Amino acid sequence: MVEISRRQAIEDAASDLFRERGYAATSIRDIARALSVRGASLYAHVTSKEDVLWGIVDRAASRFESAADRAELEAESRRSGDPAEAIAALVRGHVQVLTADVDEAGVFVHEWRALGPERRAAILARRDAYEARFRRHIEDGIALGLFAITDPRLAASTLLSALNGVATWYDPAGRLPSDRIADQLVDLSLRMLEAA
Amino acid sequence: MVEISRRQAIEDAASDLFRERGYAATSIRDIARALSVRGASLYAHVTSKEDVLWGIVDRAASRFESAADRAELEAESRRSGDPAEAIAALVRGHVQVLTADVDEAGVFVHEWRALGPERRAAILARRDAYEARFRRHIEDGIALGLFAITDPRLAASTLLSALNGVATWYDPAGRLPSDRIADQLVDLSLRMLEAA
Repeated sequence: MVEISRRQAIEDAASDLFRERGYAATSIRDIARALSVRGASLYAHVTSKEDVLWGIVDRAASRFESAADRAELEAESRRSGDPAEAIAALVRGHVQVLTADVDEAGVFVHEWRALGPERRAAILARRDAYEARFRRHIEDGIALGLFAITDPRLAASTLLSALNGVATWYDPAGRLPSDRIADQLVDLSLRMLEAA
Repeated sequence: MVEISRRQAIEDAASDLFRERGYAATSIRDIARALSVRGASLYAHVTSKEDVLWGIVDRAASRFESAADRAELEAESRRSGDPAEAIAALVRGHVQVLTADVDEAGVFVHEWRALGPERRAAILARRDAYEARFRRHIEDGIALGLFAITDPRLAASTLLSALNGVATWYDPAGRLPSDRIADQLVDLSLRMLEAA
């Protein structure tokens, strides 16, 4: 338990720094300084800066995946087979994860490219699978004549990029509370998809 | 002239590598190797890796700004004062810059956070000014009752994030030619904004 929470503290401090000044400009020593420990003692818990990045990105990916699981179940139970309901729930779940820990989510969105080739490929595959869930509901909506989309692949990818913008500017102390942001992004997303 | 084109060759090679494996994982030596020169000889032309990044990001920012200048002039000449026309032209110009040199544009979109504090602040200010151009036309559209947007700041930011997604997946040899992408993104953007 102690080990786990120490690792978590390292990743939290790193998320903060990675989001504030970028992964490239942050050193293990900076992370140690933020935790008021010596750099050498961090290496008892992590093997490299990329290892810390992986911990953050992997955890964030799991959060997005769990949120999508919940969203799809909830949409299904509320109005089974309604693609707009499913997209609304997925959007809401995505924004919730983005705003619940915006440092962690921001590192996921912006810094996954800095992972080494294998981990990068692994995250890319999970991102693709996640995006495919949005795409399937868009395809359902097209089939039902609800969505005016000709290219569901482009639409799903564009929708997720639009949502991920939140990670760039969201400030928990800012003018917009997270549920208002989610409401507005659900509106924008559905309007983007729906046939007039 | 020789100096300028050498510098350009360095930035092109660097854009390639930064987009492929990320800024953090690319060294000056990697850039030199891609150009088949020794690392030491690169330092005759650039002072640091961040200096190369700045060259790329600064040039890309100028391209986006010029494209927006042209787009606004063109929209104004075609149908003066029509916010939808202006947004369509801005979106088209933005996608054109993104696809004309996707390595350069991708570095602009994804790696500007890796700049040092001063250059980062300078780019952030230019990004804000650029986004404000989109926002002004959205506000005009709201005032005219054309756009069903309650928060023009959120809408402008979300719109630009949506467009920037192109930098992540665009492949000049891929299934979608750039003008088809632009057409579809104009459609998605206007649908997202317009009142039913």
